[in-house]
Amino acid sequence: MKPVCLVMGAGAGIGGTVGKRFAAEGYHAVLCRRSDEDGLNRLVKDIEDAGGEATGFILNAVKDDTIEECLAKVEADIGPIEVVIFNLGAQVGNRALEETSYKVFELGWRMATFALFRTASVLCPLMAQRGKGTILVTSSTAAVRGNAGQHSHAAAMGGRRMLCQSLNAQYAGKGIHVAHVVIDGSVDAPDTLGKMLGEEKFQQLRESKGLEHDGLMLPEKIAETYLHLHQQHRSVWTHELDLRSFSDLAWWNH
Amino acid sequence: MKPVCLVMGAGAGIGGTVGKRFAAEGYHAVLCRRSDEDGLNRLVKDIEDAGGEATGFILNAVKDDTIEECLAKVEADIGPIEVVIFNLGAQVGNRALEETSYKVFELGWRMATFALFRTASVLCPLMAQRGKGTILVTSSTAAVRGNAGQHSHAAAMGGRRMLCQSLNAQYAGKGIHVAHVVIDGSVDAPDTLGKMLGEEKFQQLRESKGLEHDGLMLPEKIAETYLHLHQQHRSVWTHELDLRSFSDLAWWNH
Amino acid sequence: MKPVCLVMGAGAGIGGTVGKRFAAEGYHAVLCRRSDEDGLNRLVKDIEDAGGEATGFILNAVKDDTIEECLAKVEADIGPIEVVIFNLGAQVGNRALEETSYKVFELGWRMATFALFRTASVLCPLMAQRGKGTILVTSSTAAVRGNAGQHSHAAAMGGRRMLCQSLNAQYAGKGIHVAHVVIDGSVDAPDTLGKMLGEEKFQQLRESKGLEHDGLMLPEKIAETYLHLHQQHRSVWTHELDLRSFSDLAWWNH
Amino acid sequence: MKPVCLVMGAGAGIGGTVGKRFAAEGYHAVLCRRSDEDGLNRLVKDIEDAGGEATGFILNAVKDDTIEECLAKVEADIGPIEVVIFNLGAQVGNRALEETSYKVFELGWRMATFALFRTASVLCPLMAQRGKGTILVTSSTAAVRGNAGQHSHAAAMGGRRMLCQSLNAQYAGKGIHVAHVVIDGSVDAPDTLGKMLGEEKFQQLRESKGLEHDGLMLPEKIAETYLHLHQQHRSVWTHELDLRSFSDLAWWNH
Repeated sequence: MKPVCLVMGAGAGIGGTVGKRFAAEGYHAVLCRRSDEDGLNRLVKDIEDAGGEATGFILNAVKDDTIEECLAKVEADIGPIEVVIFNLGAQVGNRALEETSYKVFELGWRMATFALFRTASVLCPLMAQRGKGTILVTSSTAAVRGNAGQHSHAAAMGGRRMLCQSLNAQYAGKGIHVAHVVIDGSVDAPDTLGKMLGEEKFQQLRESKGLEHDGLMLPEKIAETYLHLHQQHRSVWTHELDLRSFSDLAWWNH
Repeated sequence: MKPVCLVMGAGAGIGGTVGKRFAAEGYHAVLCRRSDEDGLNRLVKDIEDAGGEATGFILNAVKDDTIEECLAKVEADIGPIEVVIFNLGAQVGNRALEETSYKVFELGWRMATFALFRTASVLCPLMAQRGKGTILVTSSTAAVRGNAGQHSHAAAMGGRRMLCQSLNAQYAGKGIHVAHVVIDGSVDAPDTLGKMLGEEKFQQLRESKGLEHDGLMLPEKIAETYLHLHQQHRSVWTHELDLRSFSDLAWWNH
Repeated sequence: MKPVCLVMGAGAGIGGTVGKRFAAEGYHAVLCRRSDEDGLNRLVKDIEDAGGEATGFILNAVKDDTIEECLAKVEADIGPIEVVIFNLGAQVGNRALEETSYKVFELGWRMATFALFRTASVLCPLMAQRGKGTILVTSSTAAVRGNAGQHSHAAAMGGRRMLCQSLNAQYAGKGIHVAHVVIDGSVDAPDTLGKMLGEEKFQQLRESKGLEHDGLMLPEKIAETYLHLHQQHRSVWTHELDLRSFSDLAWWNH
Repeated sequence: MKPVCLVMGAGAGIGGTVGKRFAAEGYHAVLCRRSDEDGLNRLVKDIEDAGGEATGFILNAVKDDTIEECLAKVEADIGPIEVVIFNLGAQVGNRALEETSYKVFELGWRMATFALFRTASVLCPLMAQRGKGTILVTSSTAAVRGNAGQHSHAAAMGGRRMLCQSLNAQYAGKGIHVAHVVIDGSVDAPDTLGKMLGEEKFQQLRESKGLEHDGLMLPEKIAETYLHLHQQHRSVWTHELDLRSFSDLAWWNH
């Protein structure tokens, strides 16, 4: 039985790609996402075609019991979850305070903060019992500094970052490696950046900034760092690192 | 008509004391708290006895519409709110993940993060129209680093800190001064620390650490810094500062 | 005998202005600067004309023994130094690595880091014996984030910030208040910004950004915050705060 | 001709071990250290015995011209330096301010800050011309927070961290990857920790905390992360990460 790598938020960007990478490394990839069952099935098939194992779940992470039921099912039917890629975002584009409804603000928290808390509440005790586990949390610049138009996003991600530190403080000594990955730039991801910008603008950006120029962060390259974090020996665990394109300025410089 | 200083979370510690200080400075203090109407009335009477103006509100900040209705009423009946002391905490004591229910975690966010968002959503547009306003946010060590037992508290306060930076980024240029005050130590406050520790332990701590030794932070001294922040000239605004007793180590040293 | 407030780096901007403010508060202001004896004498005379006490020293802070001799002389002839305003900068304008000579880099460290270490080495033991003292350190954005063109400045100021934390960790409990003030913007200061930009450009900037618009930080307003830091009760000391104009973005937003 | 990986500070801990790791990966390891020619020769021989290439240099990094001459010689005689492991420390043990001489303080800066500046001043322009290069800087907790007894160490490392950010800001876009690695714990390193503690205490620590328990950070495991940093694709570079044993608390929790 293969160990399980569960991806919460498995679109065609970081989530799905990291899932594929762990599948290639011998993990059963469990891919959870809110919608686009076709896209999900393609991801599963890609992994299977490459000789790997994968299972897809359509799951609304802001609804009651969804995460809990999925995790219970995976643990019962597929196997112990060894790695979680927590990849739910809460980016709603740039919105002034007046354009940020209570509903949007709460949704951001439910996706980015509370869903991680729920996932950790279920899994950390199990992982601690088994003496090992890895939780890799995709994060963003908004987790380390607020900005105009980021009221919802920054509040959700900032809370999440502090939650990661709290989980790490309680569980690292019990063998659970929690790492907070600050994605400080634009990712070449059709499901998130692509949808936010629209197809045409996204392709323009890919051509001007990405592709040959590597100004967009490539998901398959990000996946290498996720894998490395998971493979770090327990005497040398990283809790936080940043990632950005060589051609981008760091957040503290712009 | 006096300008209004509204205190959200006006207990017998920082909130009430800062309210008194602003009342002494010529503000109509509007004191909002969840419970203890007697305590609230005493605060109001203290201010009036000293020649000041005050109004008390019993208000549950986690319920729908409560904050919004209170703010509307104050603006209509008492006067434009010039200063907000946002003093709602989310400290639930040290709790391991397993002892932190979903309900507690959500409540922390509703108190510490969402209630500030609601307050700002109502007031920032008004303050921006008037070209001035001050929002002083009492915060804690948990806003800048997580810790075992702080899953709920740190997530709520960390989100709040990023929200403060976001509000500041959008509104400073419009004359609204948002300041995030990191209270990095124990406050000599019967309503919070006192209740958390119990009467006896609190008195012991006061005698051993506080009183003559100044190891507990004195609310009336904290109030001086709040007043100073509000009085800073707009060419030299502070967004964040820390406060701790001289005899305590900074959070980064323990 | 008046208590002494010694200003290291007392030009016509923050240093001299804070010196004046403390003189008005009853301190004997000891003003130290590298050059411009006429300017120094004017500062002293201004303070005396206003009924205060002041003494000027021309002193090259990067030379051996200068600081030590000055401090010894002040302690012997004028009185115990209660407050130090450490205001030496190391700004050399924007310089690419290739344009930053070893000499410039070392000078930056001697001014901004080593001179503070020397000052603290002499005064902290004395202040600790007396059970009180305040060291207020003017700092800059470069202390909290590096930037292209800031190789020398950022290295010097970043080292200084960590030194301030170290001094604070050893000496706060002995009654010495060390505060690190992050000046995150342009100060309306002819001796520093004025010289860097040249007379004409400086006046243009003052007219476009400063004066009525408060986009330049006013030294006399900065001085109020320095005074407040010194006056904070020992149960509520600030170790670090930032200051910037309401119309400027915080460093983390640009 | 093999590409060159130059290690500044190549003792029996991180430096030498990372050198070996890069040699195994096909680099000519150039190992520089201040003393212990026998130890250096053993390192070189170990690498050669394993089929790799290595050259040793005895070099005093605080003396004038030493670094510059070494780098010039390597570039001329061995080949273009593609990777620098900058591993000079400035740890002098815990020393109160009164026990930290001016000489010690300056030496700390010369080792930890200025030597990196000198190295970068020589190599960054060359690497920028060649369009690629990697500078991995071993750092420590003292780079991110001061502490009593760390006056010299923290000032030196804090300056270094800001210098790394400045180098990164100027040179990342030109293909130079600068990464700052915060070693937040004790390394199983006889040449540094071993010397600081003495042989006997070091062995006790190894037995109680390290070895089977992984409480000491293992240099060969640290080396894996250094290698990963170097191998990151340029669209996803890490500027900073922390490393600590799973059983240690993060610096912000103690």
